[in-house]
Amino acid sequence: MKTNTQSTTELTNGVDTGALGKTVDAIQGNPAIAAFKFRAQNRLISGGLNRSEVQTFHGALQEHRTDQNPFVLYNDEPPVLLSTDQAPNPVEYLIQALLGCMTTTTNYKAAAQGIEIESITSEIEGDLDLQGMLGLDPDVRPGFQELRATLRIKTRGPKEMVRDLYMGSPVYDTLARPVPIKVNVIFEE
Amino acid sequence: MKTNTQSTTELTNGVDTGALGKTVDAIQGNPAIAAFKFRAQNRLISGGLNRSEVQTFHGALQEHRTDQNPFVLYNDEPPVLLSTDQAPNPVEYLIQALLGCMTTTTNYKAAAQGIEIESITSEIEGDLDLQGMLGLDPDVRPGFQELRATLRIKTRGPKEMVRDLYMGSPVYDTLARPVPIKVNVIFEE
Repeated sequence: MKTNTQSTTELTNGVDTGALGKTVDAIQGNPAIAAFKFRAQNRLISGGLNRSEVQTFHGALQEHRTDQNPFVLYNDEPPVLLSTDQAPNPVEYLIQALLGCMTTTTNYKAAAQGIEIESITSEIEGDLDLQGMLGLDPDVRPGFQELRATLRIKTRGPKEMVRDLYMGSPVYDTLARPVPIKVNVIFEE
Repeated sequence: MKTNTQSTTELTNGVDTGALGKTVDAIQGNPAIAAFKFRAQNRLISGGLNRSEVQTFHGALQEHRTDQNPFVLYNDEPPVLLSTDQAPNPVEYLIQALLGCMTTTTNYKAAAQGIEIESITSEIEGDLDLQGMLGLDPDVRPGFQELRATLRIKTRGPKEMVRDLYMGSPVYDTLARPVPIKVNVIFEE
């Protein structure tokens, strides 16, 4: 899937590997370039329905703002969880983010090594026991008890160089190892 | 924000607390009702762009399917991360899911105790060092190094009963404590 555009940009798997190489070189010269801050905002609408916006982030030593002005995402819950089923719920967003991140990480890292990827499809299922969230059993955690994902990869490249690339995924790592979360609750008048 | 609809359903914070109480009673009678399985699917489009679907889940002893047939979510990356900025990226989905889940959990748990919530707004920022994902420094994790969230809650109810409700959030718990992730990589012909 290598493509040469008019500007002679070389794409592997849709990734501009020349630009990726320059990014790596720049970070090696100045690691501060690699420090990113991602952000979101949210507000309750009613019941299980709430609305997030994603617009700005910091990275490569500067502030960035999406042209989409901003991305709007709704969370909701299905009727059996007492809301209006207008959108995925937060734990569904979480597991789709894991699939998306493992896919992008595999695709970029393969591209960086010149390995062409023909396709990646994936699915995931996670076990969650509501007794945890509802506080009915102190031995049951509120969160996922286990996540099971399958990545189906089609490539003519060396499989042993592709198999474990997903482990470099930021979402995979954030879930596989605990992350410090500071929550500041402010009561407004 | 209590509302009586024509069917005399009593809503607190948009939550049908009668139905919530019945759910809790049912789970206490048969904990298997609380066992949920959430699912997603994804496929690579190109570069940092991929597409997820969320449609079915298992819970309350049966299979469920959204009427939305299915929910479709795109992941992309911004230009500085070498993609086309058509959608939030996976780590942005992750942090918005955390805000959404802490908000819903706080709102539902307050409703269950009869505490009316006037508003919840929130924001989050997370630090992510690309040296981890790029494999440039083995001491830098690929995932978030720290997440910092602020929840702004407006309620006339007892603040001490509301402050820590977010800790029961499934996404909060999934991030705060490690979750076992099984990934099966299959190479297709």
